[in-house]
Amino acid sequence: MSAPELGIGIVGYGGMGKAHSLAYVLAPRVRELPAAPRLRVISGRNGAAVEHAARSLGFERFTSDWREVVAAADVDIVDVCTPPGTHAEIVEAAAQAGKAVLCEKPLAAELGDAVRAVAAVRRASVRNAIGFNYRRLPALALMKQLIDEGRVGEPRLWRGAFLTDEFVDPEIPHDWRFTRAEGASTVADLGAHLIDLAGWMVGEITATCAQSETFIRSRSSNGELREVDVDDASAALLRFGGGAIGVLETARVCPRRPCDFTVEVNGDRGTLRFDYARLNELWYGDGAEPPELYGVRRIRAEHPSHPQTEGWWPLGQGIGYGETFVNQAADLLAQWPDGAWTPDLAVGLEVQAVCETIERAAAERRWVEVAEVRSPAAV
Amino acid sequence: MSAPELGIGIVGYGGMGKAHSLAYVLAPRVRELPAAPRLRVISGRNGAAVEHAARSLGFERFTSDWREVVAAADVDIVDVCTPPGTHAEIVEAAAQAGKAVLCEKPLAAELGDAVRAVAAVRRASVRNAIGFNYRRLPALALMKQLIDEGRVGEPRLWRGAFLTDEFVDPEIPHDWRFTRAEGASTVADLGAHLIDLAGWMVGEITATCAQSETFIRSRSSNGELREVDVDDASAALLRFGGGAIGVLETARVCPRRPCDFTVEVNGDRGTLRFDYARLNELWYGDGAEPPELYGVRRIRAEHPSHPQTEGWWPLGQGIGYGETFVNQAADLLAQWPDGAWTPDLAVGLEVQAVCETIERAAAERRWVEVAEVRSPAAV
Amino acid sequence: MSAPELGIGIVGYGGMGKAHSLAYVLAPRVRELPAAPRLRVISGRNGAAVEHAARSLGFERFTSDWREVVAAADVDIVDVCTPPGTHAEIVEAAAQAGKAVLCEKPLAAELGDAVRAVAAVRRASVRNAIGFNYRRLPALALMKQLIDEGRVGEPRLWRGAFLTDEFVDPEIPHDWRFTRAEGASTVADLGAHLIDLAGWMVGEITATCAQSETFIRSRSSNGELREVDVDDASAALLRFGGGAIGVLETARVCPRRPCDFTVEVNGDRGTLRFDYARLNELWYGDGAEPPELYGVRRIRAEHPSHPQTEGWWPLGQGIGYGETFVNQAADLLAQWPDGAWTPDLAVGLEVQAVCETIERAAAERRWVEVAEVRSPAAV
Amino acid sequence: MSAPELGIGIVGYGGMGKAHSLAYVLAPRVRELPAAPRLRVISGRNGAAVEHAARSLGFERFTSDWREVVAAADVDIVDVCTPPGTHAEIVEAAAQAGKAVLCEKPLAAELGDAVRAVAAVRRASVRNAIGFNYRRLPALALMKQLIDEGRVGEPRLWRGAFLTDEFVDPEIPHDWRFTRAEGASTVADLGAHLIDLAGWMVGEITATCAQSETFIRSRSSNGELREVDVDDASAALLRFGGGAIGVLETARVCPRRPCDFTVEVNGDRGTLRFDYARLNELWYGDGAEPPELYGVRRIRAEHPSHPQTEGWWPLGQGIGYGETFVNQAADLLAQWPDGAWTPDLAVGLEVQAVCETIERAAAERRWVEVAEVRSPAAV
Repeated sequence: MSAPELGIGIVGYGGMGKAHSLAYVLAPRVRELPAAPRLRVISGRNGAAVEHAARSLGFERFTSDWREVVAAADVDIVDVCTPPGTHAEIVEAAAQAGKAVLCEKPLAAELGDAVRAVAAVRRASVRNAIGFNYRRLPALALMKQLIDEGRVGEPRLWRGAFLTDEFVDPEIPHDWRFTRAEGASTVADLGAHLIDLAGWMVGEITATCAQSETFIRSRSSNGELREVDVDDASAALLRFGGGAIGVLETARVCPRRPCDFTVEVNGDRGTLRFDYARLNELWYGDGAEPPELYGVRRIRAEHPSHPQTEGWWPLGQGIGYGETFVNQAADLLAQWPDGAWTPDLAVGLEVQAVCETIERAAAERRWVEVAEVRSPAAV
Repeated sequence: MSAPELGIGIVGYGGMGKAHSLAYVLAPRVRELPAAPRLRVISGRNGAAVEHAARSLGFERFTSDWREVVAAADVDIVDVCTPPGTHAEIVEAAAQAGKAVLCEKPLAAELGDAVRAVAAVRRASVRNAIGFNYRRLPALALMKQLIDEGRVGEPRLWRGAFLTDEFVDPEIPHDWRFTRAEGASTVADLGAHLIDLAGWMVGEITATCAQSETFIRSRSSNGELREVDVDDASAALLRFGGGAIGVLETARVCPRRPCDFTVEVNGDRGTLRFDYARLNELWYGDGAEPPELYGVRRIRAEHPSHPQTEGWWPLGQGIGYGETFVNQAADLLAQWPDGAWTPDLAVGLEVQAVCETIERAAAERRWVEVAEVRSPAAV
Repeated sequence: MSAPELGIGIVGYGGMGKAHSLAYVLAPRVRELPAAPRLRVISGRNGAAVEHAARSLGFERFTSDWREVVAAADVDIVDVCTPPGTHAEIVEAAAQAGKAVLCEKPLAAELGDAVRAVAAVRRASVRNAIGFNYRRLPALALMKQLIDEGRVGEPRLWRGAFLTDEFVDPEIPHDWRFTRAEGASTVADLGAHLIDLAGWMVGEITATCAQSETFIRSRSSNGELREVDVDDASAALLRFGGGAIGVLETARVCPRRPCDFTVEVNGDRGTLRFDYARLNELWYGDGAEPPELYGVRRIRAEHPSHPQTEGWWPLGQGIGYGETFVNQAADLLAQWPDGAWTPDLAVGLEVQAVCETIERAAAERRWVEVAEVRSPAAV
Repeated sequence: MSAPELGIGIVGYGGMGKAHSLAYVLAPRVRELPAAPRLRVISGRNGAAVEHAARSLGFERFTSDWREVVAAADVDIVDVCTPPGTHAEIVEAAAQAGKAVLCEKPLAAELGDAVRAVAAVRRASVRNAIGFNYRRLPALALMKQLIDEGRVGEPRLWRGAFLTDEFVDPEIPHDWRFTRAEGASTVADLGAHLIDLAGWMVGEITATCAQSETFIRSRSSNGELREVDVDDASAALLRFGGGAIGVLETARVCPRRPCDFTVEVNGDRGTLRFDYARLNELWYGDGAEPPELYGVRRIRAEHPSHPQTEGWWPLGQGIGYGETFVNQAADLLAQWPDGAWTPDLAVGLEVQAVCETIERAAAERRWVEVAEVRSPAAV
């Protein structure tokens, strides 16, 4: 590892902080990279917990003040893994300090914060990326590639659903996930992934109509009931700039649906379908083929010829969730110091604008143009 | 077969006319019935074709004038298998002639016609039924039963999609299916089944917002281009009277999706999911079970203890599409002469009102209450 | 139906008798046929039961003496649907009476009986067929066709398993199915289908080694324990004349496996796989394709271009078990009076020889050549 | 990471060397462990390649002489990741040097070597383990647990198949994998996993009959043809000490089957089935349940209550192949310095004895008792 060292500072030691930490450790072991990441410092509000995380994950030091991460001279990349409501402030500070920024999705809980975050990285001209890790899953990267190759023809219909049972138990106590200002809406938390994939594969979303419901309206927290202002479930009709139409659904109250998301596109030539419950498979129906083999192909999306497979296991072993974070870290580090980082925070902002349009459409029970929400006046 | 004979007259010799004919032949062979159906007469506009159909299907006679079917003294049940736009007139005439009526779905192409049809059978006090044959599929009948038993708890989310590739080829010439006044909209033609299942399992649909698109706007017919006024694809957000919300999608331009419909309900306790591509399976996730077997059951919905299996094959052989028509015929004949026929045309009218509300919501780009469409003033 | 009438006599009113009866009723309604089958007479040992069956299935008359069926002047085809141990005697009598014969599988419970049956139809020069109905399932007929087209290349490996739970409950009382002389072995009862498919698709089986087990060795019958001499489960290694090798498994003690049979062939070019639990699907992996879509196709084996789909439902509705019997009846009637019936009883005899070789190999715990069992001396 | 350091030396830098290296890096980051592994030295015959591997994987140093790894004072565990034919010699040397040993499967290419290896670790009283990593996959660990809990009752039938297309292309040049003395037979290379799982879950295998075939008998190597003495495909009938019977198949010539292994057990109460193509799922059919939900459960085998999930991703993300190696490393390190390592090399020897029995049975075309092969005289 004679590549130059690159200091990593991670803000947040929860699930994402851990996944990102492991990713930096594995990335240079899986792929030849021009920079060698070093886990310098991790921060978190709970001192004992962050000390433990720092020790087990292999950081050089820890702190309970995220501003120390941002300010650290030996940190080159600030990786933001805190709840959504805190992202903007940290991104702004990191950008101001001249650090490159990788921010977990969704970019913010409020569109205004997302705007601020993007303005900050632009002002500071720092490299920046948003953590849409599923783009790094071979099956989804292959889906994008096949669409770009024209394998489905002109996209007409898009459908995506992200169903979980995370909120189905009414006994789960209130925490930040149930407060929109901290945890963001379910539209944003789950939907951001799907909206990003839709934009990436099919193009700009221009308008939406939607509905939302919160079935369990209060939860207890230390003995008292607190209101839940995050949606349990939402659904939206979408219009794309290119003429396609779509349907999006996000829900966290689907019993025995752990983390089941599906994405499908129907073009004038073919169909592509992905189901995260079988994350190494991609289904492709090619309408241009002669009908005697009428049906769909189940592609094992982990062949060496497929994107995002470099450095991984032999065909048939699967390349999964953890690997997406490693691929993400590797893709970013591979561009160090001069290549382009993608998707960047501006993509995160676009997605956030769609999320907020969906929320407004649901609240006002009417079709809303994304432009209406995105324009400065609206913000 | 010492059961009294019951004269059957079928109007229409297309796919449905054939499926219903076979069903009457098989029903008394599969189930013990109080009445013995006799295929008296079949009608169709093309004389040679209807003669051939009559001969091969085993009718006593045929005619090219459907009014002869309605008027025939030896016909007890008039079975309407023509394109949707013609249903109301035939139902009215049959009711007036005092015949029992089984009408294929959708009940009509226009809500006004559906209202007329129901008014006619009520006025005449004749037995009547609408051909929602999928209610007779064991897996869907079991799904209804499990919901009624409380196995999913209180329904919260419903989703249904009916995807085909019937219209995807732009070279298919124009015919009645592309004319809304004859073939009805895709919302009605495909959606009627799903809307019926939703109403049956989850309850009344009260409001909707929707979008529709016709991608191939004209098709040739004998050398000239004719406009298509039937939607290629539509999607709708639904609200149910009981508090549940739903998403409905119907589309005929999904390559290599032959006839793929799915229905899912998430309640506060469990999830039930059905996929027509595997029509003998029903998926059930029971959130009330201890988590060590966390997952879903794939029920083989053809066990003798399951509904709509009586008289059919040994477990494991499957009970499919053709069998739904036999079950439908048997269920109706089993009630002869005094039992209740269900679902009746009034159910068809309810479904039609929802279809028309979806179409209006799509046209006017706004949420529309079903009541707004259903009220006499609106019709 | 101006086609000449053809008298059908069915021996046996159980599940097969019923399935065959329905098939004769439907065949001419689904396909244009040169002969019109008439259900003349059905026989069974239990007078009341056979009377009931005759009435519900629509036979002109019934009898409790199968010899009356064979002797009836108005019967052209004798269809043998009794337990295996009785087949040979009935086939012999029918042949002697100059009747065409359709015999359910397996042809016999003992190879000697199968030899007698084939000798009888040859001597009498009567048309004859064996009821391997799964050949008439579109997915399996397509599998055969794709192999013949060279789509898998030279077959190397074959594997088939037929797993059920029919015998798993030790409380099921003793009946003819548990007596080898009447019901035949499980190797023959379930395995006959697979062995026929293997022979049809891959070629002659020449040698085998096997093992068998009966886990529940006695069952009660009217209060007393009777020995079970039918195997609960067997497995065999197979060698084919063409150089391929195979594995066969049959078992009736697999909990929650209702009737799950699978067949797979791997050639030097491709793989074909069928799973009866999804009987409208055929899986095809073509190794000759470029690897970027590496995977397998799930063919919806019911496209109009596929074999055994004529006259059936629109694509996507499925063509299943019941339809195989209709296709079988239609295929045979379509050849009336001069075409070839296939597969004939000689095929049934070949299959029986393999079954008996497997049983001998299991009993003697050694490899046995089929020729060793098939030769007159051995019989 | 204040846990005491533990020096790791890896012999072999191929796929397994890499997977094991990553595992030692991740194990202490995922699970709290009493010892901190340090990657001291890696060896390989190709100096440049091993230097590169050492650098990218993060070893302190490298060597082209494996004896240096074994001799190194700062190495506590020697991890053997070379081709099977070399295992025994390295294990012997490592044991003699007093090192703990983890050896990849299969333990050897010849039973005699496996015997030597086990004798060596016993003589030296060093901790030792065999790399049956699939035991560490949650779905398979859960399968074992459910069997032990009696959820299938008494096992009666076992079936396992391991199908790949690794050898299907005749253009693949000859290398060590095609030489039995180096790469071991396919029975051993693929089958060892299945035989281990069978023994672990169902008990001792006592006898077998088998067949093997090599379809591509020679391959080119630097312009000249060399003979292949490794089987392309083998199948075996198995008898277990407890009375169960089984079927095993291994093959590397199955087009478009990348690494598809399946394991199933049928007991007198239930069925468990695993399919590696969907490695986070376990299928369970419980015959003791009332029949109204007749079917099988698809368990998402990654719930926190399931074995081998500690420290991994949230439910629904999947725990896969890479994770099995991390779990293996963590399980072994968790026992440091005094707990039991399992499975140990003696298990590897047991498996090897079964492999060799299968090979002998195939060669001699007869049933062979494992005892016959295992006894000193036979070795």
